Amino acid sequence: MKNVIVVTGASSGFGALAARALARAGHTVYASMRETKGRNAAQVKEVENYAADHGLDLRAVELDVASQKSCDTGIQEIISKNGRLDVVVHNAGHMVFGPAEAFTPEQLAELYDINVLSTQRVNRAALPQLRKQGNGLVVWVSSSSAAGGTPPYLAPYFAAKAGMDALAVVYSRELARWGIETSIIVPGAFTGGTNHFAHAGSPDDKARAAEYEAGPYAGFGDQVLKGFASIVPADADVSAVADAIVRVVDAPFGKRPFRVHIDPTQDGAEVVNGVMDRIRAELLRRIGLGDLLTPRVVASLSHSAD
Amino acid sequence: MKNVIVVTGASSGFGALAARALARAGHTVYASMRETKGRNAAQVKEVENYAADHGLDLRAVELDVASQKSCDTGIQEIISKNGRLDVVVHNAGHMVFGPAEAFTPEQLAELYDINVLSTQRVNRAALPQLRKQGNGLVVWVSSSSAAGGTPPYLAPYFAAKAGMDALAVVYSRELARWGIETSIIVPGAFTGGTNHFAHAGSPDDKARAAEYEAGPYAGFGDQVLKGFASIVPADADVSAVADAIVRVVDAPFGKRPFRVHIDPTQDGAEVVNGVMDRIRAELLRRIGLGDLLTPRVVASLSHSAD
Repeated sequence: MKNVIVVTGASSGFGALAARALARAGHTVYASMRETKGRNAAQVKEVENYAADHGLDLRAVELDVASQKSCDTGIQEIISKNGRLDVVVHNAGHMVFGPAEAFTPEQLAELYDINVLSTQRVNRAALPQLRKQGNGLVVWVSSSSAAGGTPPYLAPYFAAKAGMDALAVVYSRELARWGIETSIIVPGAFTGGTNHFAHAGSPDDKARAAEYEAGPYAGFGDQVLKGFASIVPADADVSAVADAIVRVVDAPFGKRPFRVHIDPTQDGAEVVNGVMDRIRAELLRRIGLGDLLTPRVVASLSHSAD
Repeated sequence: MKNVIVVTGASSGFGALAARALARAGHTVYASMRETKGRNAAQVKEVENYAADHGLDLRAVELDVASQKSCDTGIQEIISKNGRLDVVVHNAGHMVFGPAEAFTPEQLAELYDINVLSTQRVNRAALPQLRKQGNGLVVWVSSSSAAGGTPPYLAPYFAAKAGMDALAVVYSRELARWGIETSIIVPGAFTGGTNHFAHAGSPDDKARAAEYEAGPYAGFGDQVLKGFASIVPADADVSAVADAIVRVVDAPFGKRPFRVHIDPTQDGAEVVNGVMDRIRAELLRRIGLGDLLTPRVVASLSHSAD
């Protein structure tokens, strides 16, 4: 079944890999990114070349997740060209690294914007169409930190990803009766293979950061990074995340996994989420809302046969 | 041991109760709130009367958690009057209720500001003093939703509280070597006894909310509230949260519980957090940072005997 799919943050990292892998699997894929005519012009060209070289139904689309207007325009462009939108992959995100106290509140707000408000903007642009169809899939690229290991010096990022994961869980319940399914991808730390760590932001309050470095946390940043290096296996393969997204999309409606963990570090998220998701399901059943755990069959699922 | 304590969001709810309970336990307590000369003037008078009637070392202090300047001024006032600050209780918070899709990104940002950036502002105002002392306690009033049951229609609030809980966990590691201890209070849903539910905000996008009401989620808001009502016992006592904060503050340094659950609904957070906190501790030990699980003894603990 050929789906029309948008992947956010697809200029690099998991997003770029997922867009290509979904196109290779035969889907119509929009690799969304900001500044397609500016800083990401080269990435757009790469997407076009990759599509041409492999004969894929894949292209870039301008969509800045920081702007509601841009989200609306990008999603509308996809819908007007295809008459539908089947899958939204929330992947856009950014990381920062440093002592929590040295980040300004404005930096925390910015991280929440990039990692969480971004999904809200895309949802508000896309969900009316998915609800109208009575069929769709929302894929969230969360983080193992939301339930598993949380090494220090990543507080603003972990706070944002925990917020995103919570949003994903509640949205899944509120979309189920519309015939929209939810899958949450939970990647562990991949310190190589993407620019996620290399491009991490740093605290604006340098004086506060220096106090940590001059005190009991001297050399701590390196210690944490060495800690990561010691648990990320040398063969950790970032394409495993893209492959997991393809498997989720290609699974039958109503049978897709609520979560898929791709964590070479085995930081424990899979154990915790296993317990947490069961306990949350139990609460819904206790209050008579157990139907929200499975997407309702609303529309005919034969759109690809049109 | 008499501690100098600030409690945020102490004009009502858990905060007001905690400030009074801590003062009754013999501490010097600052019930912080915004607009002490405006909308909260009556609350200030109540605090003053309560202090006078019971002979307590308790007063209100102007501190708007939405403003860094106000946080700095309020915290400095406490420090200049007492020469120290021992305990920060992060309690300020606000809730909203409605379908996730009907909240604007700006509303999600505002919720994150009130529930999370608020703690960052107070931390940035207060922690330099606690670090200088080499001794202190940070108490976070989190939410059982961050690990336990998450009924629908509370997405922006649950996302913010999950972020706050993540921030608390990472801060605990980054403050441990400074001699600062962390305790996270985890209240379940208390639908009565505070204004938390009664004063919950609603979605700005009324048209979007109406689509849910006209569709498969007709009457859903009432259904969720009835669900809550069915699991919150009639004798659920909000003062249990304040009492838990007193017990945490009065426990010996280094022996305070990392988490205390006060959840009459038994929504499962205690089970999940039990697993999650152990798994997170295990990861820290794996990467050689197990010392961060216990606050370091830095300063003499005899300040109250000065």
